[in-house]
Amino acid sequence: MSPVTATLLRHRLRHLRHQIRLNSTSVSPPPPPRFNLPLNHPTYLIWSANTSLGKTLVSTGIAASFLLQQPSSSPPAAHSTKLLYLKPIQTGFPTDSDSRFVFSKLDSLSLRRRIPLSISNSVLRSSLPVAESMRRSLKVSESGMCDLNFSEEKTVTGAPELLCKTLYAWEAAISPHLAAEREHATVEDSVVLKMVEQEMECGSQTNVLCLVETAGGVASPGPSGTLQCDLYRPFRLPGILVGDGRLGGISGTIAAYESLKLRGYDVAAVVFEDHGLVNEVPLNSYLRNKVPVLVLPPVPKDPSDDLIEWFVESDGVFKALKEVMVSVYLERVERLNGMAKQAGEVFWWPFTQHKLVPEDNVTVIDSRCGENFSIYKASGDTSITQQFDACASWWTQGPDPALQAELAREMGYTAARFGHVMFPENVYEPALKCAELLLDGVGKGWASRVYFSDNGSTAIEIALKMAFRKFCVDHETLLSLSEDAEEKKHVDVKVLALRGSYHGDTLGAMEAQAPSPYTGFLQQPWYTGRGLFLDPPTVFISNGAWNLSLPESFPQTASEESGTFTTRDEIFDKSRDTSALATIYSAYVSEQLQEYSESSQSAHVGALIIEPVIHGAGGMHMVDPLFQRVLVNECRNRKIPVIFDEVFTGFWRLGVETTADLLGCKPDIACFAKLLTGGMIPLAVTLATDAVFDSFSGDSKLKALLHGHSYSAHAMGCATAAKAIEWFKDPETNHNIDSQGGTLRELWDEEVVQQISCHCAVERVVVLGTLFALELKVCFLVRKVPSRDAPGRRYFHAPSWKRCIPHEWPLHVAGDLPPVAR
Amino acid sequence: MSPVTATLLRHRLRHLRHQIRLNSTSVSPPPPPRFNLPLNHPTYLIWSANTSLGKTLVSTGIAASFLLQQPSSSPPAAHSTKLLYLKPIQTGFPTDSDSRFVFSKLDSLSLRRRIPLSISNSVLRSSLPVAESMRRSLKVSESGMCDLNFSEEKTVTGAPELLCKTLYAWEAAISPHLAAEREHATVEDSVVLKMVEQEMECGSQTNVLCLVETAGGVASPGPSGTLQCDLYRPFRLPGILVGDGRLGGISGTIAAYESLKLRGYDVAAVVFEDHGLVNEVPLNSYLRNKVPVLVLPPVPKDPSDDLIEWFVESDGVFKALKEVMVSVYLERVERLNGMAKQAGEVFWWPFTQHKLVPEDNVTVIDSRCGENFSIYKASGDTSITQQFDACASWWTQGPDPALQAELAREMGYTAARFGHVMFPENVYEPALKCAELLLDGVGKGWASRVYFSDNGSTAIEIALKMAFRKFCVDHETLLSLSEDAEEKKHVDVKVLALRGSYHGDTLGAMEAQAPSPYTGFLQQPWYTGRGLFLDPPTVFISNGAWNLSLPESFPQTASEESGTFTTRDEIFDKSRDTSALATIYSAYVSEQLQEYSESSQSAHVGALIIEPVIHGAGGMHMVDPLFQRVLVNECRNRKIPVIFDEVFTGFWRLGVETTADLLGCKPDIACFAKLLTGGMIPLAVTLATDAVFDSFSGDSKLKALLHGHSYSAHAMGCATAAKAIEWFKDPETNHNIDSQGGTLRELWDEEVVQQISCHCAVERVVVLGTLFALELKVCFLVRKVPSRDAPGRRYFHAPSWKRCIPHEWPLHVAGDLPPVAR
Repeated sequence: MSPVTATLLRHRLRHLRHQIRLNSTSVSPPPPPRFNLPLNHPTYLIWSANTSLGKTLVSTGIAASFLLQQPSSSPPAAHSTKLLYLKPIQTGFPTDSDSRFVFSKLDSLSLRRRIPLSISNSVLRSSLPVAESMRRSLKVSESGMCDLNFSEEKTVTGAPELLCKTLYAWEAAISPHLAAEREHATVEDSVVLKMVEQEMECGSQTNVLCLVETAGGVASPGPSGTLQCDLYRPFRLPGILVGDGRLGGISGTIAAYESLKLRGYDVAAVVFEDHGLVNEVPLNSYLRNKVPVLVLPPVPKDPSDDLIEWFVESDGVFKALKEVMVSVYLERVERLNGMAKQAGEVFWWPFTQHKLVPEDNVTVIDSRCGENFSIYKASGDTSITQQFDACASWWTQGPDPALQAELAREMGYTAARFGHVMFPENVYEPALKCAELLLDGVGKGWASRVYFSDNGSTAIEIALKMAFRKFCVDHETLLSLSEDAEEKKHVDVKVLALRGSYHGDTLGAMEAQAPSPYTGFLQQPWYTGRGLFLDPPTVFISNGAWNLSLPESFPQTASEESGTFTTRDEIFDKSRDTSALATIYSAYVSEQLQEYSESSQSAHVGALIIEPVIHGAGGMHMVDPLFQRVLVNECRNRKIPVIFDEVFTGFWRLGVETTADLLGCKPDIACFAKLLTGGMIPLAVTLATDAVFDSFSGDSKLKALLHGHSYSAHAMGCATAAKAIEWFKDPETNHNIDSQGGTLRELWDEEVVQQISCHCAVERVVVLGTLFALELKVCFLVRKVPSRDAPGRRYFHAPSWKRCIPHEWPLHVAGDLPPVAR
Repeated sequence: MSPVTATLLRHRLRHLRHQIRLNSTSVSPPPPPRFNLPLNHPTYLIWSANTSLGKTLVSTGIAASFLLQQPSSSPPAAHSTKLLYLKPIQTGFPTDSDSRFVFSKLDSLSLRRRIPLSISNSVLRSSLPVAESMRRSLKVSESGMCDLNFSEEKTVTGAPELLCKTLYAWEAAISPHLAAEREHATVEDSVVLKMVEQEMECGSQTNVLCLVETAGGVASPGPSGTLQCDLYRPFRLPGILVGDGRLGGISGTIAAYESLKLRGYDVAAVVFEDHGLVNEVPLNSYLRNKVPVLVLPPVPKDPSDDLIEWFVESDGVFKALKEVMVSVYLERVERLNGMAKQAGEVFWWPFTQHKLVPEDNVTVIDSRCGENFSIYKASGDTSITQQFDACASWWTQGPDPALQAELAREMGYTAARFGHVMFPENVYEPALKCAELLLDGVGKGWASRVYFSDNGSTAIEIALKMAFRKFCVDHETLLSLSEDAEEKKHVDVKVLALRGSYHGDTLGAMEAQAPSPYTGFLQQPWYTGRGLFLDPPTVFISNGAWNLSLPESFPQTASEESGTFTTRDEIFDKSRDTSALATIYSAYVSEQLQEYSESSQSAHVGALIIEPVIHGAGGMHMVDPLFQRVLVNECRNRKIPVIFDEVFTGFWRLGVETTADLLGCKPDIACFAKLLTGGMIPLAVTLATDAVFDSFSGDSKLKALLHGHSYSAHAMGCATAAKAIEWFKDPETNHNIDSQGGTLRELWDEEVVQQISCHCAVERVVVLGTLFALELKVCFLVRKVPSRDAPGRRYFHAPSWKRCIPHEWPLHVAGDLPPVAR
């Protein structure tokens, strides 16, 4: 399917989204902030398989190894060496203060090694009990947090620097979520992250290392109750995992490692204290020697031991660890730096004129978290920046970070449980569950069979094969289909379709759409266009009102009926079925079908195929639903099977699970893909009625539908689809859905939409469900049409809401709000 | 793609495989045994997040709750109540003996509750130190294990029964892998599993519960070093996870839970000891209340406490736990029982005549582990039985259990890191890594661009678009392509292809193949067959020798050249390029092309498309590689682009990574799918040369290749492909590959193959790489051809190795040995 990108108005739209949120009465939580992480120095998260395994000892050792080196032959670099140690969440404070521990040990080690060091330790915010125990009487914020601003330091001019910071402290030595509750001092995830982001900023100093030490184990809750591995996920910092060298520690270490990987983290090294059980052997074997495993000498158990000797003894291990951290960082940056160039050399992007994509335009995506990409920026200060997925990743984007994490677990589980298994004559849970949910959801009331394939195009090819067979069975006499195969060849079956609809890129799908630049000889020499293609009446907002526009091909008398609607609901109102316009539509369709059948003896319209309500790739045009309903009825009266192409429109894109509900009529066959899997992996389905299915029944395999792909109904696609279908329609997991789970809340502020539609640069606006499409007037377009592209230019000269080529001229802007909460 | 199943000869082939293994000198490990698990009673694995969290207390409590109920009003049932407690791996024995603990506690509880109970405890095998400490002098087996056969029991006639069994015991109280090493008493995974399988068998008694208690944490190593969660995976028994109620326990419990899920296990409940930290709250939140979390009262710390009071106090929790276990079991069996019927009602299987698939024929697949399915058998004693994937899941099957587990982790990681992100003008690690590996592997030496799509059919449609464009650019004068779009329509571009090759099910891919029952009007009314289709010469083993068979359409003189080859290598020998046959081939191809171009002014052969060496879906026919090489050369001389369809043949299916290496010539364009992702999820690539890529370069987007799918280059497919490509070619992970990683070992015993080819029922055999295909003579076919299927019947009347319809008549049997070790 072809994309419509939002190059020009991306920034504007974002602004708009914020405005809408401010005006809206929706209960949706505010959008998560987007972060910017410096990448001009290494930053690591220090994780642990459990509490009390020595995260802070490891942080201290790394710090000592980084800061307390004998001055090399090139002393001038030394003064810019800095280690930033952050402890975002500290409980049991002030008895336990990991930042103070690092601070004081480095102080001792600096004295012992006779290497000067500037050190500081500060505690920024705390609960009231902490503030009171510190004898500070401070203003308590609404959330119960105080600005503690405690700080201690020792400065040596020109020496390497250690900055230790505790960001939030609670008194009770329990899990942060309990301490926050008990001390009435909560802090939201986004606030923690913003604070960490701010404190990680070190400017452009050269020799910097930043450590962010987590609290407890990898999946210990943070102050809000969010597991820390989920809390810090938007940063996706590389990690050091402090493992467990004790009995049972292999299991705990591997499980913790897997929980991190299952959230998309990279782990640079595993390190643990030696307990004489050689746990490193099975760990190395598990990690296939691809992640270094380091073993620290046993830690003295005597509480009076100041550990200084132990740090001296461990120096070699920490040095090795520090070197791993630096080299992993350098490799990452080197790879990220080279990716844009390399991509331009080895990829062949779809729908892309490579000549028009300079290296600088290539976006290096380091990861995604819900609706945000994390982008590598090489220019200026290198960094990883979060960016809103304004292209909705070709309209597959649906999940928020919570669903993404949930789907990731589901994928891991399903891959391990099934991998892929053959489908025909078999049944397995994910496929059955998925089929049941589809028939009880988008297929409810009409469909009884699910045919799986891989993408929208294949789903359409299958739908066409189904429809034509049904048509042939219903019209056997008409077609005089005999046993003689030769005779059949003279029958020419075609589709009835709307101009501007788009059904996919494989030849069969293309044949079902009207000629366009996509179908020209240069693109597809085999295209002939096997259909009767009608111009549809469209509706859109312009100058604050919903307008109906009838195509020129309509009879002159019809033009009286075009006009405006007061509300969008009016357009969908079924009472229009008895209007004069309905009669005009009906007559028009009858006439067209009559004319066509008279023009050729052998050609028959064997299927109607429509994108219900919205033509997606064709330019986000909203077709008058009355016209489509009339079309469906006219075809049904003639026993012409009806296909709904819901590849784009299905699964809440337009505010309902299936657009059939908006249209108010049912198809015989319908295709779904894209959001079906919650935006994860390719899977498509073609749903059909029993009557369609029965037309393939017989005693011979040759009557069966002989179309399939190797991974038909692959377990992973089905499992993620089943999860996403349930998630989207459950008000508990999708805060944008109404409490009955039937429709999406109105996401766009009516007043703002009206204002936009009145703007002098705006030709038309379409707003429905998660879709906001606007078309600029031609004079406001930035890009010139290359003069030799005759087919393209035509579209510019036509009325401006005629189909244009996406990508090339960003006439249309689709800002998709995914249906899940933000 | 269409399948060839192995219905008839499945059993025979399995036998053959074993024979081959016995005869073979390959270093591959023996195939894993296949298991049978009773499902007429619930069986649970008792897992734990760490050591010493009370797994045995939980087992004991469940046993007490199950066995020591007050006799209900229906006393006759009581005597058949039985609980089987298995401890497969016990270290620290006899000081630690969990089976003895359960035995003695149930004894005490039975006395205390005055409910009679028959109890027994036995220890089956042990290391020598254990045997010595038990003062038993026994014969030590080769592996160092002794048959200990220790046993103790108390029998009460008619009372409920408790059977406790320790299967393997070691003396040292350390991890089993260390104890096994230290006590020189090892036991292989398959032996442990066979023993557990055997001991779990309880006959058809009605009221039985079986508990299998693991050792240490979920990922603690077993005696061989295999992590226990991997060791027990072939059984995929549902589990009870004993969590951690202490500080840090939330993290450890969640991580352990995720490690189990990441191996495809289901967890029925989480239970842990209360430490006053309300860990159940975040756990319930994490589990979304979908898995029950139960909390046990604090366990007395006094070592002299016999815990009897604690068990009494905990009875309510254990009763609830037992009820969960029973109801989860019943739900599972009910679901499994209904699945075959439900599948027949909601699925529409590809390539399947539903009328011919009775409910009994539907296979209910509970899971897969490497090359085995776990199948639910409802008939007789219900059970889960492992079955060899003899259909190779439509030729996508590649991974062994180790690769499946590895890919599952990779999928979880990639889903969490990326989900799906848009591809055009973007770059992300999995796509780049995958492209680099492809260009350095299957595309090495010729390809420079990778075009991603979703399956073989789409990859072929893209390849055709590429080839035609290249042809048009190279033959601009010939085609007199002008700017005028209208004029272009008169040019008719066709493919040159071989009869019997199959390139996919979408219309474009079908147009590139010769007419067949798949392409008839009934199946695809739009098919016209846009090609010049040649009959290819084929080679096969018959009566012990490789034969060459020339098609009848060849000139009479050629028939002198047909004959036999001494070895298969001879067939691939490049010296044949100068043979008389090469000249005949060359003349034949030239003549055909000449005739074709003379027959039509407007038709041009614009692409050659072949499946190199083997026609897969077309019937596993081996085409004379010399003929294909000549074809390639003749086309290249005429500037006709060459497409290799390696969808089936690629990635080691034929013993080499790319079949181009067997053929000894390179294409301009090649398509890969199926095994590309290691048999996990759909992904396809079309590789192309720079020259092909350049023919799409220009100043206009309209010159670009405008074909794409929503999930083009989806991160999950690319990541699993990158992993599988590396895994397959690495001798360390693929034991069937030679040490240089270039070719697969010969998997089929030459002598056995010869014998089969001499069998009177066998028409022909083809053996290459992982492929073993044999065709039976028509007279040995079981199934009759329905009389009205004229197109199908034709194939039967033709010489028997002509193309037949897979599935309907299992003429061909493809036994695929996946390229990885077994």
